Amino acid sequence: MKNFSDQLSDYGFSTEVRVRLSETDAVGVVFFGTYAHYFDIGRMDYLAHLGLNKLDGAVRDLIPGVVVAHEAEFKSPARYNDVLTIFVRIAHIGKTSYTFHLNIINKRTRAKVAKGSLSLVWMNQAQEPIPVPQEVRGVISEFEGEGLLA
Amino acid sequence: MKNFSDQLSDYGFSTEVRVRLSETDAVGVVFFGTYAHYFDIGRMDYLAHLGLNKLDGAVRDLIPGVVVAHEAEFKSPARYNDVLTIFVRIAHIGKTSYTFHLNIINKRTRAKVAKGSLSLVWMNQAQEPIPVPQEVRGVISEFEGEGLLA
Amino acid sequence: MKNFSDQLSDYGFSTEVRVRLSETDAVGVVFFGTYAHYFDIGRMDYLAHLGLNKLDGAVRDLIPGVVVAHEAEFKSPARYNDVLTIFVRIAHIGKTSYTFHLNIINKRTRAKVAKGSLSLVWMNQAQEPIPVPQEVRGVISEFEGEGLLA
Amino acid sequence: MKNFSDQLSDYGFSTEVRVRLSETDAVGVVFFGTYAHYFDIGRMDYLAHLGLNKLDGAVRDLIPGVVVAHEAEFKSPARYNDVLTIFVRIAHIGKTSYTFHLNIINKRTRAKVAKGSLSLVWMNQAQEPIPVPQEVRGVISEFEGEGLLA
Repeated sequence: MKNFSDQLSDYGFSTEVRVRLSETDAVGVVFFGTYAHYFDIGRMDYLAHLGLNKLDGAVRDLIPGVVVAHEAEFKSPARYNDVLTIFVRIAHIGKTSYTFHLNIINKRTRAKVAKGSLSLVWMNQAQEPIPVPQEVRGVISEFEGEGLLA
Repeated sequence: MKNFSDQLSDYGFSTEVRVRLSETDAVGVVFFGTYAHYFDIGRMDYLAHLGLNKLDGAVRDLIPGVVVAHEAEFKSPARYNDVLTIFVRIAHIGKTSYTFHLNIINKRTRAKVAKGSLSLVWMNQAQEPIPVPQEVRGVISEFEGEGLLA
Repeated sequence: MKNFSDQLSDYGFSTEVRVRLSETDAVGVVFFGTYAHYFDIGRMDYLAHLGLNKLDGAVRDLIPGVVVAHEAEFKSPARYNDVLTIFVRIAHIGKTSYTFHLNIINKRTRAKVAKGSLSLVWMNQAQEPIPVPQEVRGVISEFEGEGLLA
Repeated sequence: MKNFSDQLSDYGFSTEVRVRLSETDAVGVVFFGTYAHYFDIGRMDYLAHLGLNKLDGAVRDLIPGVVVAHEAEFKSPARYNDVLTIFVRIAHIGKTSYTFHLNIINKRTRAKVAKGSLSLVWMNQAQEPIPVPQEVRGVISEFEGEGLLA
């Protein structure tokens, strides 16, 4: 993952999840596919935190892009009832795309659990890429700092 | 649901979940099947609260019974990011079975969202019903009060 | 469950699912909450079979009612890779509501696995109950037979 | 993804899933996190096909490694009721690790839907990497051909 930072201080936003029993597998650890759900929680909470996500009952009003790529590395297992902190940043904005970096740690032990990225492309109703709206670009740049987006 | 109480003060335990986007359906409200997961969270947190659930990394050490029945009624829709309070009690213990009652409300608006029950049977490794262990019965009776279990 | 039939010949429609590993729990059997998903598959496939579900890419075009109640009983465990046959019928149509009965068996062993019901209410955009459309009622009555709906 | 092949003839195994309504999101297309589940189905079915997966009721008997990395690219949306064909191969076996490549297409339209990889490390009970067992290596080499594993 290009430019991925392991420094948690590089992440301006974090949110939390608590592991549910149904998210663990037969050996008692979180199923790897569950992390995509955790990443999505990180993404949506980040957008809501920046006011870019007006999901007041009508989810489909603003869909901030379509996920086109996803990467994840799993560092240590998480278990039922563990509280995980999901650190989130937007590490890159291109013309029509932008990329989240996510870094999940065990809140109590501070163990690294998983890290990864989500890349999205802004699309119109016809599913064609269009430029990331200037206002969205502006809000993210202000939050992340111009340097981080270089 | 027999003896179901709508009085939240009859519930000695509660826990919370926050609705995830992936738990909502195409019309933006929580998919009804998601509530079974919320009920399960309520059940497991209740058992952990009473010290009956030693899920420290080895989930299968203590499996407190097998779910044999499940009922739910849905009163009002919940949406992405809503915080739901899950009120939980054990309303009945029989010889080999016991029944949870669950009552979910919207934490902010106090709207009734869903309510229901989970019935479990204590089983041995051969999946045959066996009596609920006396120590478990004792812990629950002390928490719920003898009267409620009548 | 009122009028529930254990006779599979009373069910005019069936569909299948194969159990996924992520649907099992720590003891290797299907998590009870997964059955709500299986019931939903049965419901949607039934509606599609009767032409009542025009989900061609735009899921929200026709939402055939809101689930207001759900009941399930679990008879024997299902495991990874088991193929389950979901028998589905509509057992009742009221003025604004209708009720599915579902009966799940293990396709190979014919063991009874789970059974239950889903009750829905037809609603307008304001979430107020409205009569089940006459054309829907007609299609279902023709399929199920007038007698079954009595 | 290193050495990833878009030639479906390079994949010696395939399996199918049908998209469930609960796997789609608010805009009616498959939620990206669902693909991790589809990849896992591909992985488990592949292993079962090669006899490497003895999941007869006791899921935990043989856990063929721990997933340490996951990559996915999403090419076109899939929708409710679409049948997807998951092509699976093992593209690499190292000393303690091995990597699946997965290529998902729409069975009817043949549209490319998603592709990606899953990397696993063989571990002992203490979660330390150990060599992939020689018999497993042998079965996979025979199936994939020595060349593919180079």
